[in-house]
Amino acid sequence: MTSKPIRSNGKPLIGISMGDPLGIGPEVVVKALSNSELRSQARFVIFGLHDVLEIVADQAEINRFWWREPYDGRPRIASGVLVADFDTLPQARVNGKRGPDEAAGRASFRFVEEGITHLKSGVIDALVTAPISKAAWNLARCKFRGHTELLWRRFDCKPVTMAFFADELRIALASDHVPLFELRNQFTIGLVHRPIDMLDRALREWYGIDKPHIGVLGLNPHAGEDGLLGDEEQRIIEPALTLARNAGIHVAGPLPPDTAFVPEILARYDGLVAMYHDQGLIPLKMKAFDRAVNVTLGLKAVRTSPDHGTAFDIAGKNLAGPDSMMEAIRLAIRFVKAKRDARPSSAIVAR
Amino acid sequence: MTSKPIRSNGKPLIGISMGDPLGIGPEVVVKALSNSELRSQARFVIFGLHDVLEIVADQAEINRFWWREPYDGRPRIASGVLVADFDTLPQARVNGKRGPDEAAGRASFRFVEEGITHLKSGVIDALVTAPISKAAWNLARCKFRGHTELLWRRFDCKPVTMAFFADELRIALASDHVPLFELRNQFTIGLVHRPIDMLDRALREWYGIDKPHIGVLGLNPHAGEDGLLGDEEQRIIEPALTLARNAGIHVAGPLPPDTAFVPEILARYDGLVAMYHDQGLIPLKMKAFDRAVNVTLGLKAVRTSPDHGTAFDIAGKNLAGPDSMMEAIRLAIRFVKAKRDARPSSAIVAR
Repeated sequence: MTSKPIRSNGKPLIGISMGDPLGIGPEVVVKALSNSELRSQARFVIFGLHDVLEIVADQAEINRFWWREPYDGRPRIASGVLVADFDTLPQARVNGKRGPDEAAGRASFRFVEEGITHLKSGVIDALVTAPISKAAWNLARCKFRGHTELLWRRFDCKPVTMAFFADELRIALASDHVPLFELRNQFTIGLVHRPIDMLDRALREWYGIDKPHIGVLGLNPHAGEDGLLGDEEQRIIEPALTLARNAGIHVAGPLPPDTAFVPEILARYDGLVAMYHDQGLIPLKMKAFDRAVNVTLGLKAVRTSPDHGTAFDIAGKNLAGPDSMMEAIRLAIRFVKAKRDARPSSAIVAR
Repeated sequence: MTSKPIRSNGKPLIGISMGDPLGIGPEVVVKALSNSELRSQARFVIFGLHDVLEIVADQAEINRFWWREPYDGRPRIASGVLVADFDTLPQARVNGKRGPDEAAGRASFRFVEEGITHLKSGVIDALVTAPISKAAWNLARCKFRGHTELLWRRFDCKPVTMAFFADELRIALASDHVPLFELRNQFTIGLVHRPIDMLDRALREWYGIDKPHIGVLGLNPHAGEDGLLGDEEQRIIEPALTLARNAGIHVAGPLPPDTAFVPEILARYDGLVAMYHDQGLIPLKMKAFDRAVNVTLGLKAVRTSPDHGTAFDIAGKNLAGPDSMMEAIRLAIRFVKAKRDARPSSAIVAR
């Protein structure tokens, strides 16, 4: 109590990019943070447009719980919620139209870019991103396919892994937005090994699981049935498992994909690695639609996002549910706290 | 009441092949038919080994509910359950060993072959197959990959469609036991159109749905996202949908695979067509493990089977649950009755 306050003892500072101004991002951000219990767990800075947030708050009959500052590159926040307002952005106003829009794309790109800048410099402890429109980014000539690629480039690191966490279902993807048949040309031992390694780290660091048990799915029906239905299990997945075992990771597989998500089998693993997008996302969305959180593994920083998109069709109608956004914020806070606990300050080490 | 009894007014005669003598097939057959309510709905002939069925009945403390006749190629049955006993088959006896075995493979192949013969000739109204071991069939030099291929060859028809039905989830597969990346070379408009057509017929004939609404999944993540993530939706699936619409089928798609099984979306369709094995079977087994039934579409005869395998690891231990086998028998009876209702006898038509 009497010692000088050190930064890691304060509440985490969570940055939130508001997402596409015409999508449901602003609405789920406001609705999520209107929960005072959630607000009490951290400090927040929202990179976005104050006008848009006010409109959705009015529609949802939510009293303003934030204060506003024009964004000047240095968000200052001691407690509560700050809206860092990008009000000087040209044309970035809601005008009734809902769909991919160039100005909206340029705005949502700026929110994320500034969020990443402060995440890299350590001003914020985690970044939670509300959904953007890839089509709008295209219109705005932003060449990145999405948040994940942008983060990976800006952090100048090895390719990151897309993962989805929901309650007890934690799935890392070996590949994400690749046409299914093109995956053949990218399907390497490294591609399969990376998500195993990253999921193992995440489960240890963020969940405090001492020696996580990771299940790795096969690629082919019945996991290839001893080579009868495809040899990628033997040529690629098995060697990746061997690499992981040699590194001390507790790993099982290749599991027949169709039974891996049956509750009795799922219960054996702390996390699963899926080979392709739908192999992981079909069961995830069945089990936890609107509760799952998209987590980026391999960043050396915490970034989460809800598992839904901009949903232009329901935007502006006060119909969007904030469950997935609330979960994304909760997980971000949890991961930041777990990272702090895992790296005690020198004062504690010296005790 | 006074008219001459015609065959279609009697109880359906359901043939059941006992499956691999060393697997759990005999056990689930005996357990399923020990249910007197199920027995009361049809007549049954089991193609199998009487000794084996007696042993599993003893283990499960089930009183004998059948009578036995040595199989002579002409099963005669007025009511109840007949075991057509293949007791002259050499070496086809349980000897404690559980696993793929040549004699067991030869025996299970004979049971199915005889069942198919009587299904083709109309002696039995439907065939329910208990699980066989493909490895045992290999040892016995039976060149077929499984029941479905054998049926298709014996019926001398176009390739059939593998489908799985469980409660309200009905899924037909465009491809089944194909290595995932090899599917690229087989992925044609016809391959996608066939299961749509067959599922539409099955839902009309067997379920009495007047104009079934069929959802067709995409192949790629987000169903290709307008060509950004693969073009098979545009090149192959869309044309197959057009063909189906031109034939009057009520069809929607290509659906983004990862959200198609979310309850609100699933509820819009009477059945779904999946592009590959795990796209259909991951959600099916999550939702209905041990309750789903494998149904062969396109045969001009009714054939069902449970969705599990021989499960050598638990065979002989009185641990197998008969739920999926009971469902397979119930669906077979239902489909036979629906076919009869759909084709009224001339007496009824003349009335």
